[in-house]
Amino acid sequence: MTETKTDGPAVSPLAPASFPELPKIDGVRFAAGAVGIKKANRTDVMLAEIAPGSAIAGVFTRSATRSAAVLDCQAKLAGLSGDEGFAIVVNSGNSNTFTGKRGVSDVALIAEAAGKALGLPASHVFTSSTGVIGEPLPASKITDALPGIAASLDPAATEPAARAIMTTDTFPKGAVTTLDLDGTPVTIMGFAKGSGMIAPDMATMLGYIFTDAAIAPDVLQAMLSGCNRASFNAVTVDSDTSTSDTVLMAATGRAGNTPITAPHPAFQTALLRVMQDLAHQIVRDGEGATKFVEVRVTGADSDADADRVARSIANSPLVKTAVAGEDPNWGRIVMAVGKSGAKADRDLLTIRLGDILVAEQGWVAESYTEDAGAAYMKQQELLIDVDLGLGQGAATVWTCDLTHGYIQINADYRS
Amino acid sequence: MTETKTDGPAVSPLAPASFPELPKIDGVRFAAGAVGIKKANRTDVMLAEIAPGSAIAGVFTRSATRSAAVLDCQAKLAGLSGDEGFAIVVNSGNSNTFTGKRGVSDVALIAEAAGKALGLPASHVFTSSTGVIGEPLPASKITDALPGIAASLDPAATEPAARAIMTTDTFPKGAVTTLDLDGTPVTIMGFAKGSGMIAPDMATMLGYIFTDAAIAPDVLQAMLSGCNRASFNAVTVDSDTSTSDTVLMAATGRAGNTPITAPHPAFQTALLRVMQDLAHQIVRDGEGATKFVEVRVTGADSDADADRVARSIANSPLVKTAVAGEDPNWGRIVMAVGKSGAKADRDLLTIRLGDILVAEQGWVAESYTEDAGAAYMKQQELLIDVDLGLGQGAATVWTCDLTHGYIQINADYRS
Repeated sequence: MTETKTDGPAVSPLAPASFPELPKIDGVRFAAGAVGIKKANRTDVMLAEIAPGSAIAGVFTRSATRSAAVLDCQAKLAGLSGDEGFAIVVNSGNSNTFTGKRGVSDVALIAEAAGKALGLPASHVFTSSTGVIGEPLPASKITDALPGIAASLDPAATEPAARAIMTTDTFPKGAVTTLDLDGTPVTIMGFAKGSGMIAPDMATMLGYIFTDAAIAPDVLQAMLSGCNRASFNAVTVDSDTSTSDTVLMAATGRAGNTPITAPHPAFQTALLRVMQDLAHQIVRDGEGATKFVEVRVTGADSDADADRVARSIANSPLVKTAVAGEDPNWGRIVMAVGKSGAKADRDLLTIRLGDILVAEQGWVAESYTEDAGAAYMKQQELLIDVDLGLGQGAATVWTCDLTHGYIQINADYRS
Repeated sequence: MTETKTDGPAVSPLAPASFPELPKIDGVRFAAGAVGIKKANRTDVMLAEIAPGSAIAGVFTRSATRSAAVLDCQAKLAGLSGDEGFAIVVNSGNSNTFTGKRGVSDVALIAEAAGKALGLPASHVFTSSTGVIGEPLPASKITDALPGIAASLDPAATEPAARAIMTTDTFPKGAVTTLDLDGTPVTIMGFAKGSGMIAPDMATMLGYIFTDAAIAPDVLQAMLSGCNRASFNAVTVDSDTSTSDTVLMAATGRAGNTPITAPHPAFQTALLRVMQDLAHQIVRDGEGATKFVEVRVTGADSDADADRVARSIANSPLVKTAVAGEDPNWGRIVMAVGKSGAKADRDLLTIRLGDILVAEQGWVAESYTEDAGAAYMKQQELLIDVDLGLGQGAATVWTCDLTHGYIQINADYRS
């Protein structure tokens, strides 16, 4: 049940050297199953069981055409009561999106089946589905298999879980960190999936994060939402947004720390590290990506304006193709600043590629040479740094280049 | 001086069969020159002389990093006085954008030289520049050549004028129509350039329209602005916006009609026809384009919402690559509706490909077959028709597919 998905394109050249060792989290068990949702012999169902006494929180896509599973998760989180623990069921291969009333009842069937297998109320079972849009989910394949999958639950099955949620991903994505809470060591561990369609608003990505820290549910939610803005919501592959994006986080409290009941900067920093690590891995697996690009904007009139400029640059097909072509085409960066809708003054702009000053005060910098820019662009990890020279607003987003590989994958792949 | 630009990619498969015969407009003369701005032996300067007594109007890019020429045109239109006639000077090969103070003085030098050659005040000379961003314009090549170019002015030189403004265009773009104003025949004729970077806001395109009708300047401006919304501002190739977009229109009044001094529906309809024709030709020359796509949205909560949805679909890289792959992937259309930010209800959506009902009430239509969808997508001219089922808001935009050709042109071309 742990076989790698071997069809599809080769592993991204930007992938990390290896999958990290994801430790057990006391109070959480995982299992993966291959039920044949789209293809045979691929793990396509992930089950996580979270012990009683845990807290859970979530953030979701803002799409107006959200999937049935997302709507169900949001309703359950809003009306949560009881202390029986939780389960998360994720399937890949079919997103159960735009499937009408049948999609809604399929979510209910899966939640009931998982609840029955684990002795939980269906209202404590969260589901996600990712894959093809608009085709009915073969839910009975999942419900029939759930008792068997539940029987194989194992705290150590983290990597099989991370692999089972993959779709067009070319590598599984995991991240882990530890911190000390007043003498008590706690762990934050998570995994995610996503490659194409990764947009400003957390598109087609799923993330599941677990910690053994004790955290009050409302604080957990606040910290998750806060970190999401600077991680999953700050990456973009092609500006497209999925209907199914979900990040769920559970805190089991088994580490025995004094419960966190107010915003906790050290925990939040550690959580952000894990979430940014996962978000960056999603960009690194951007369809066809050959370059990882950080776009850093400073000196904007406001943070919102900085974000607008950063996304305008990161989503510009002309900037992204220039990066693919290793062309230090800063004129396209100027164009993207101009079209962003943010306040900008051509004659106050400063543009750097890494540490290289390219343009300032409305013109190319005297010190700049095309050779230096061209040499910089040959690197695999790039920084586009824009200062608008107006105020204190700042934002950073991460993206990848736009290549023939993206066209190949998306003009041929029937999603 | 009328040689075709022969380097660059082959003519778009979506190009019209031939360039239309653009008639003379009484009161307007054209000339083209090859001054070697970027390459030798290509016409790269267009001069138009417009007789005294004419009215002139313009619409421009809304980019915050507008070029010096655009800023100059806007200032001149705002402060216009006198009846001496006008001139328009356009160069291709260099956009004179992000060229600091030198860019501003280069515009002034060209306007002065053209004014001197034609006996006009520089304040009546409008200029446009298109091409590379961020490199100083070799203005003296233009100013030195202007007297000679002016000497060759000819009312019949419409096609050479249309060709001289081309950059990466694979074919020249012209359109013409005639109408009868209370027994007086009048002509509206125009030409345009643009291929890549054609965005929601009239990006990297230049358009020049001429009529022999008599029209009051403020009415001319109002009709031009009105038609622009449903033509040049309703096309998108890659969502990128240029810093130099300009549409100028002149009305010489030589036809002898009773002057139009109030909004005139028949004239406006004829003008819209010419402007839509030119705008569609720009999409048909979209970099790498192999399909022409109309995206029609109805049933939205407002026209603004309909426009949001239409642009979200038309700019989605996933929709555009599906079109390139001839894949009737309506799930990506649902995704694009969802991310648009417009009010939408999944269960009220109706999606058609041409006349084929694909999805309704939150699910695939019973009558729909994948074979029918796949056969439709093989056509070169496509209609994506979305009804949101909410209200009366409607909008139409035009776009093309996203292909390997786009990547090739933009990852290799140093713009």
